[in-house]
Amino acid sequence: MLKANANYLNLPGSYLFSTISKKVAAYKEANPDRTVISLGIGDVTQPLSPAILKALHAAVDEMGARETFRGYAPDLGYGFLRTAIAENDYRARGCDIADDEIFVSDGAKSDSGNIQEIFDEKCVIAVCDPVYPVYVDSNVMAGRTGLYNENAGRFENVIYMPCTAENGFSPSLPDKTPDIIYICSPNNPTGTAMSRKDLQEWVDYANKNHSVIIYDAAYEAYISEEDIPHSIYECEGARTCAIEIHSFSKNAGFTGVRLGYTVIPKELKDADGVALHGLWARRHGTKFNGAPYIQQRAGAAVYTPEGKAEIKALVSYYMENAKVILEALKEAGYTVYGGVNAPYIWLKTPDGVKSWEFFERLLNEAGVVGTPGAGFGPSGEGYFRLTAFGTHENTKEAVERIKKI
Amino acid sequence: MLKANANYLNLPGSYLFSTISKKVAAYKEANPDRTVISLGIGDVTQPLSPAILKALHAAVDEMGARETFRGYAPDLGYGFLRTAIAENDYRARGCDIADDEIFVSDGAKSDSGNIQEIFDEKCVIAVCDPVYPVYVDSNVMAGRTGLYNENAGRFENVIYMPCTAENGFSPSLPDKTPDIIYICSPNNPTGTAMSRKDLQEWVDYANKNHSVIIYDAAYEAYISEEDIPHSIYECEGARTCAIEIHSFSKNAGFTGVRLGYTVIPKELKDADGVALHGLWARRHGTKFNGAPYIQQRAGAAVYTPEGKAEIKALVSYYMENAKVILEALKEAGYTVYGGVNAPYIWLKTPDGVKSWEFFERLLNEAGVVGTPGAGFGPSGEGYFRLTAFGTHENTKEAVERIKKI
Repeated sequence: MLKANANYLNLPGSYLFSTISKKVAAYKEANPDRTVISLGIGDVTQPLSPAILKALHAAVDEMGARETFRGYAPDLGYGFLRTAIAENDYRARGCDIADDEIFVSDGAKSDSGNIQEIFDEKCVIAVCDPVYPVYVDSNVMAGRTGLYNENAGRFENVIYMPCTAENGFSPSLPDKTPDIIYICSPNNPTGTAMSRKDLQEWVDYANKNHSVIIYDAAYEAYISEEDIPHSIYECEGARTCAIEIHSFSKNAGFTGVRLGYTVIPKELKDADGVALHGLWARRHGTKFNGAPYIQQRAGAAVYTPEGKAEIKALVSYYMENAKVILEALKEAGYTVYGGVNAPYIWLKTPDGVKSWEFFERLLNEAGVVGTPGAGFGPSGEGYFRLTAFGTHENTKEAVERIKKI
Repeated sequence: MLKANANYLNLPGSYLFSTISKKVAAYKEANPDRTVISLGIGDVTQPLSPAILKALHAAVDEMGARETFRGYAPDLGYGFLRTAIAENDYRARGCDIADDEIFVSDGAKSDSGNIQEIFDEKCVIAVCDPVYPVYVDSNVMAGRTGLYNENAGRFENVIYMPCTAENGFSPSLPDKTPDIIYICSPNNPTGTAMSRKDLQEWVDYANKNHSVIIYDAAYEAYISEEDIPHSIYECEGARTCAIEIHSFSKNAGFTGVRLGYTVIPKELKDADGVALHGLWARRHGTKFNGAPYIQQRAGAAVYTPEGKAEIKALVSYYMENAKVILEALKEAGYTVYGGVNAPYIWLKTPDGVKSWEFFERLLNEAGVVGTPGAGFGPSGEGYFRLTAFGTHENTKEAVERIKKI
């Protein structure tokens, strides 16, 4: 008799952003005359830049000629891209990462969701609260989290590390030792970033306790301050305790292109000495067939001089939005965080209004979509996320509307 | 203390095609003057066709303009592609499949590997022997197969259904009832295809026993005979027992482009009435971020009048190779199977020589790479797979060389 994976049934409700898009669709249907501006989901709005487009067209042309046609890609990524990544994102920053420690994939969301699979089902995870839902949900599906406690809004076997204004949105070392620690910095959703010193503490902690840190560096390109590390491998000892996940979505605007990568150093081993590098390679080889050639060429273009300049301009474009939002909200009397090393602005809802109530108010009174902090975890209650990924025009219009409510 | 997923350690050796490519690389290094022809891995050699290239370039252009730029795709696929698939691959053939029962992905290998995840870890799987390694390996990783018995070349908790010349390479209904049945038709590796009548028997069996059939239709475009079904949904009752997986790799040459899809009818439920459609949707929403817009446009081009004509020509090109291989091998005294409804030729090794021994002989004496039948399972021992995916020139050259040994 066929049985479904009962762990899936422990997932509470639907994926946060699906819920939001349904609410927005209903609002639009009921208010066909109003223009709705979304500063909700972290999706970019600016087109791909010239160097990327050139690389994509050239790769498509190659696929059209027998001499240059490419079939199955190497499971772990083409050498040209793995080298470009290792050289530019790591070795140029003094991080000792080899080309073959880079695993190219179809995106950071897939990697964030799949990475838990190489660990034992009894491993205990620790996550920040609030947190990007994929880390927890993928572990729920694997049966690693226990049951959901509706009242607490938490799973019984997960270690939650509250990140609120009181601790500067920086997680404290937990009392109980986790096996797997998820850290995202610059952080989604709070928009804050960990200092080199704070991250080093976590690396030391993980090495001491033989835990692994899954470090999500998706927003690395938005770092503007000196003491914020761009990679966890800037910390001493990270090669024996850290996996790093990277996205091309937020720097190069690849949300619809799909490309990402994960770094697993060869020294990284479990308590029995099993190297995780080989396990992840095996997963890629068995359940994935390589990222598309066309996309990998586009990824390589990110590291050319033209690509670098264009991506810097793209990031600046969005960070100008962040500044506009920050300033307008402050002016309107809101308490705001983030927006300096990250494309997210995290605001305290006025008068202690609940996150979802503020969501409804913003949608109904201003026609602006944001993301309720509570959607990211109970410690996100009373907070609200706005993204800097809109166009300049929409962002300005949105803050004008918000100022009026 | 961090523990790796110990199930991974039950995987025997490395992925079949990685082993082969290592052996070939070693041979090439030792024999730099010899040209090696690969009729081994099922990778295509012909470039993408004009309609596909046009769609790819147009989509890249769209990504370069703000008005037409596309960010995150809908998790389950763009409507334009889901409709084209449901309409052309199903409803035009009289199969009752709705647009929203189509889940677009980055390829059939990912779907084949990931689909097991929505089932309970205690479910028992049945596979043909020989079999495409991904079905078994992905279940090993999930802990569903028990330990590997080195002598038997089999996992203790898997139901193997031998497919040999004696039963016409068609699996018989097993004695013990499986929960999950993997069927690939036209078959990889044997190149044989199940008749409508035989497949109906399996559908009836699955419905009676409340099992699910995971039907891999990756080679559907190669069917040339009338009584071979193009989809399992041509069988009565399949909507309550079958999942179908499709690839664009073998019809449109997308091995390096990456696009596929899976069909899960809404009536398909486990023994407790849990609908699998919702579970797979949730998996897509949590661990995947949609197939790239560019690729989905290329997929839609497959269903245009030009696309259809070009793909028919592409399939004919490879099937001419199949004919060349079949005829030459018969002439040389080999016993051969497949190659009529599939791009694979399955030959009996001469004089009962072991599959890997024949692999070495073919490589060393003819400079031709094929795939040892034993690599697909113990019942593949004494068989050998050649693919029709080469160029005409290479295929002809390869069979000439084989004839001489």
